[in-house]
Amino acid sequence: MQVYLDNNATTMCDPQVVEAMQPFFSEIYGNPNSLHKFGTASHPALSKAIDQAYTAINANDNDDIVFTSCATESNNWVLQGVWIDHILNGDKNHIVTTEVEHPSILSTCKFLEEQGVKVTYLPVNDQGVVEAHTVKSFITEKTALVSVMWASNETGMIFPIEEIGEICKEKGVLFHSDAVQAVGKIPVDVSKVHVDFMSFSAHKFHGPKGIGGLYIKDSQALSPLLHGGEHMGGRRSGTLNVPYIVGMGLAMELATKNIEETMAKIRAKRDRLEDELLKLSDTFSVGDRENRTPNTILISIRGVEGEGMLWDLNNSQIGASTGSACASADLEANTVMLAIGADNELAHTGIRLSLSRFTTDAEIDYTIAHFKGAVERLRAISSSFAKQKPTKGGEVQECELHHH
Amino acid sequence: MQVYLDNNATTMCDPQVVEAMQPFFSEIYGNPNSLHKFGTASHPALSKAIDQAYTAINANDNDDIVFTSCATESNNWVLQGVWIDHILNGDKNHIVTTEVEHPSILSTCKFLEEQGVKVTYLPVNDQGVVEAHTVKSFITEKTALVSVMWASNETGMIFPIEEIGEICKEKGVLFHSDAVQAVGKIPVDVSKVHVDFMSFSAHKFHGPKGIGGLYIKDSQALSPLLHGGEHMGGRRSGTLNVPYIVGMGLAMELATKNIEETMAKIRAKRDRLEDELLKLSDTFSVGDRENRTPNTILISIRGVEGEGMLWDLNNSQIGASTGSACASADLEANTVMLAIGADNELAHTGIRLSLSRFTTDAEIDYTIAHFKGAVERLRAISSSFAKQKPTKGGEVQECELHHH
Repeated sequence: MQVYLDNNATTMCDPQVVEAMQPFFSEIYGNPNSLHKFGTASHPALSKAIDQAYTAINANDNDDIVFTSCATESNNWVLQGVWIDHILNGDKNHIVTTEVEHPSILSTCKFLEEQGVKVTYLPVNDQGVVEAHTVKSFITEKTALVSVMWASNETGMIFPIEEIGEICKEKGVLFHSDAVQAVGKIPVDVSKVHVDFMSFSAHKFHGPKGIGGLYIKDSQALSPLLHGGEHMGGRRSGTLNVPYIVGMGLAMELATKNIEETMAKIRAKRDRLEDELLKLSDTFSVGDRENRTPNTILISIRGVEGEGMLWDLNNSQIGASTGSACASADLEANTVMLAIGADNELAHTGIRLSLSRFTTDAEIDYTIAHFKGAVERLRAISSSFAKQKPTKGGEVQECELHHH
Repeated sequence: MQVYLDNNATTMCDPQVVEAMQPFFSEIYGNPNSLHKFGTASHPALSKAIDQAYTAINANDNDDIVFTSCATESNNWVLQGVWIDHILNGDKNHIVTTEVEHPSILSTCKFLEEQGVKVTYLPVNDQGVVEAHTVKSFITEKTALVSVMWASNETGMIFPIEEIGEICKEKGVLFHSDAVQAVGKIPVDVSKVHVDFMSFSAHKFHGPKGIGGLYIKDSQALSPLLHGGEHMGGRRSGTLNVPYIVGMGLAMELATKNIEETMAKIRAKRDRLEDELLKLSDTFSVGDRENRTPNTILISIRGVEGEGMLWDLNNSQIGASTGSACASADLEANTVMLAIGADNELAHTGIRLSLSRFTTDAEIDYTIAHFKGAVERLRAISSSFAKQKPTKGGEVQECELHHH
């Protein structure tokens, strides 16, 4: 059996989505901007995909949804666009974000700091979230933008976006949320939550890799990142990626139309897996389940280094992660775990398991069995765990992480 | 019969390419940056695609080829990256380009002008090309970058890139070429022609829409446009679009491996089509065939408005263009034709026919017949053509465009 539990890194493209894209490679292949039938033949499918995207997040006709090549582009676009519009050509000089954003936010902020922008990186609390009052207290008259993720890729923790949105609205500061880990996992309704800009990505909800989106409230101004041939109303140039736009629209519809029901099933599997793994001694999972995306567990196993655990799971055909896939090629400590106050050793023991609607009960059973075996094997050879163990059984020291 | 003669706008994705991409949607779908087998399973195919891209343009191991979401991104990246590196954070303030570049160059230059950059837009000669000595005479000590297209999307005319490259090298000025209309149509060998940066796009050579590339000589520095998770060696962040990278690699191989032979066949069909259409009175094609991409004709038919012609061809199931697809949604005069000195009326009569390796002789026959019929119909109702006609037959006035 193969078990893929790394759905926060990327997901399988839904076979229905793959099928829907097929006609747009070699049959209906004209450039949608062309005047002839080869081009216009794709218009009904494109219109449908746009409608699906609007419906999925409950956007208004006055809003814009622009298809981009990925959420990294969407995030770069907002940060660099606000920089151009309000800092380089305006009187602002400050951006507020968090320490735990995706690298596409953090690296862009670092770049903007090199250009003279002041950036405040807010810390998370012991639940791994940034609190709304913290955001409020760091907004100044010079703040051009607040950018806070909707949910964490590493912990699944859901941030108080509604409150932060209200604060930004009240203060007259632009608000962006990277909702890559929220759209398709929890209900996201832009008619109810105030966000000026919101990023999302198809490959996180069973669409293809290489396409994302940016929601723009009330179609407000934002300098383009990709200037050119006036595609998408001049907002994002480049020949339209018709197959992926069609695929993304369907993927958004499939991921959101019965989200409560779908997620209840995923949550039940996740909770069962988490309950079983927490029966192992000295294991800790991060964050309250109630305030977490229903598919995610970030679990720490005292004495078991994350990379060793991944390797062992991999040998059992189980795909998991130590955190963000974007940073997984280097063996650094989990930055979110450090941020929530884990010591350096613990921050090397985080294993993230992220389910999808394709995850089966049989896969959960298989994972429980192999995960427990892996922990036993690795603890047996772990010198750090042996050293910590009290000589005559009993409890090891209390961990500062939340223990379920 | 349906005849697609708008291959400079976009091409059919080669069915072999579509097939090669399939496994990477729902079977081998892991994130290539992940440590587990689901992620690493894509590595051999990615390596192969990278090799195919290097081979296709004869790049060196010391060079970088970075996959982007399209040539519009590649073009924006170079212009904005050079702006950041050498103008905003350097002592240069000037960019040299041409009047006939793709909108992704021209719009980005307009944006940079708004940021205080000086941009020189060089005119083309009566053959529709910018001459190397013209480029040379406009380079100053403040010039950061020269950006000149390799071949024109509208006319197919090939620019003197080798000479311009030598001039830039000698002057110590960075040189970028938008080779979107060259790669896959004429041999492009970056070991023989000096370019610092070169853009190309898969959907112009039977790869998918939504992926392009940027060649970077000697892996030299260039500020990223998309900051983030350190994909592609930190040059271009965003989860790798595995299916499209695999597809692009194969498409580049298929388009370049026997390019002389393939293009000889396309050229023969193009020449036959052009010869037949030029038998119509008062028709003109732009630019010497010898210095033109072998698949392209830009033909002007006195008295026949381009849009009317397109409409008539479209009714006969023939897809053509008045010029760049990126600008085809608005009914403006053909800017290249204006640039080469056509009067405003003629500049509204340009019809671009662009072939591909999938174009058949039967399609050419069909096009010749229907094109001629369309011209007759439209001239019969054209008041401007009637007015120009001498009352007793004979020649109409000489046209300033090159007449074959």
